[in-house]
Amino acid sequence: MSDARAQRVEGLVFRDGAFASASRAVPKEVAVAISVGGSTHAVLMATPADLEDMAMGLVLNEGIVDRAEEIEHLDIVETAAGIDCQVRLVAARAATYVARRRQMTGPVGCGLCGVESLELAAPQLPEVAAGNEGAFSPGTIATAIAAMGREQQLGRLTRAVHAAAWHDVSRGLVVSREDVGRHNALDKVAGHLARAGIDPAGGFLTITSRVSVELIQKAARMGCGLIAAVSAPTTLAISQAEAAGITLVAVARGADFEVFSHPERIARATQTAAPPADPETTRQGRAVYGA
Amino acid sequence: MSDARAQRVEGLVFRDGAFASASRAVPKEVAVAISVGGSTHAVLMATPADLEDMAMGLVLNEGIVDRAEEIEHLDIVETAAGIDCQVRLVAARAATYVARRRQMTGPVGCGLCGVESLELAAPQLPEVAAGNEGAFSPGTIATAIAAMGREQQLGRLTRAVHAAAWHDVSRGLVVSREDVGRHNALDKVAGHLARAGIDPAGGFLTITSRVSVELIQKAARMGCGLIAAVSAPTTLAISQAEAAGITLVAVARGADFEVFSHPERIARATQTAAPPADPETTRQGRAVYGA
Repeated sequence: MSDARAQRVEGLVFRDGAFASASRAVPKEVAVAISVGGSTHAVLMATPADLEDMAMGLVLNEGIVDRAEEIEHLDIVETAAGIDCQVRLVAARAATYVARRRQMTGPVGCGLCGVESLELAAPQLPEVAAGNEGAFSPGTIATAIAAMGREQQLGRLTRAVHAAAWHDVSRGLVVSREDVGRHNALDKVAGHLARAGIDPAGGFLTITSRVSVELIQKAARMGCGLIAAVSAPTTLAISQAEAAGITLVAVARGADFEVFSHPERIARATQTAAPPADPETTRQGRAVYGA
Repeated sequence: MSDARAQRVEGLVFRDGAFASASRAVPKEVAVAISVGGSTHAVLMATPADLEDMAMGLVLNEGIVDRAEEIEHLDIVETAAGIDCQVRLVAARAATYVARRRQMTGPVGCGLCGVESLELAAPQLPEVAAGNEGAFSPGTIATAIAAMGREQQLGRLTRAVHAAAWHDVSRGLVVSREDVGRHNALDKVAGHLARAGIDPAGGFLTITSRVSVELIQKAARMGCGLIAAVSAPTTLAISQAEAAGITLVAVARGADFEVFSHPERIARATQTAAPPADPETTRQGRAVYGA
């Protein structure tokens, strides 16, 4: 089994009380810059795949642009030190970006920066429109988590990456992406949807990781009303999901899950969902929607 | 069981095919600014505990200071928007910091920022001094992972946080810290050691998470020659550990582990380590060193 996103490394293992040589597939991780109009917006460590999706998703999810059409050009440039994702904005948006950037670079030693920066760190999130009440059944959520698991090729190979996916109730899993960083994985999903012209509002997100507040902020920017995570949320993720009108489902294992905010989007009618027997089966299963 | 770092939330659960109400302990997450000399250095999301340790560890691990004594004053200030860790440097160090900060704030739209930023993102790491050859036996590593597990109170309660710890071969676990962010957990350990006047070079680190490159950079800044992780590493973490002279142990489960760089610090003599029966037992076990 080979994957361009992984590399096989030789190592020493200690197993059953003895040392031996062994090899293991390890996920690639490289420094990736996101440059907007020739200025660095961010440098992050990422799995070097689907970088057009990641750059597009990041500039959308951080509010640099509101729509894919505001990006005039997107170039992925490999350098010795890493990969530079060069984003050129359309003129009107570029002017706004430069003005906002100047405003954010506060004076050195102003004495208030910590407090001001804290206020900037909790941005007023766009509220996701109500809708999709009762649209997502327990079976749909379990099936989506299973479908995401089936797509985790790099995850099965390396056991060291996260995955995110977006699903449509009628079509099932539409896109899934893997990355050493869970924020990157979600940005890649957002970027793919934007580039494909798909509105995230019509479906829902799944992610393999814990849910911290940044993931809720990204879901809110995407206008997506439901996110379901395999692991648990933090307090701030719950309160921001509540405020942003997002249904936060977490601890989704096998057929079971917990709902932490806005349960109105979950179908509550009793049903026989024929859940898979155990979480491992679920993650590896080949389930389809509507079963 | 209660813990000031967690909060109990009420939710809806779907379990065994039926909905019910339930409560769950969720880790607290708040916005924390690190301000240096009145300027914001970083804003991050963290578990609001041991913040003096975290601020100290972060300014050490990011190279803002080289020694705890270069910090004149450290204040933790709670505000409505989050917590501001206000660091005041001694005069000589403050001048260096302001000069470097001015240099790092590049001009807007210079067209080279992405590439320059990528080069800054891969800093020349301090090489950890050779030494401690054969100092760490398989039993010592397994016992340390188990000891860290025993300290994971917040982890057991919430299943949504990471832990890091530092160990001394003769004394066993010296400090462990938990946080919603794995980088924060390691910074908290570094800060505690610095404040206690303990040189990390004499022992080794353990962490519950995957190993990405930032964790290796922190271990290198700490001058600590061995880090052992429960989960797997990335390619960049391995190459930087190799370059920095660090022994990278990962996939440490029960008595077993893998060594990805500088195996010379691992004791290779055959021994009967009486490993615990399974990983879960190990994580919960009450092992002591030297057994």
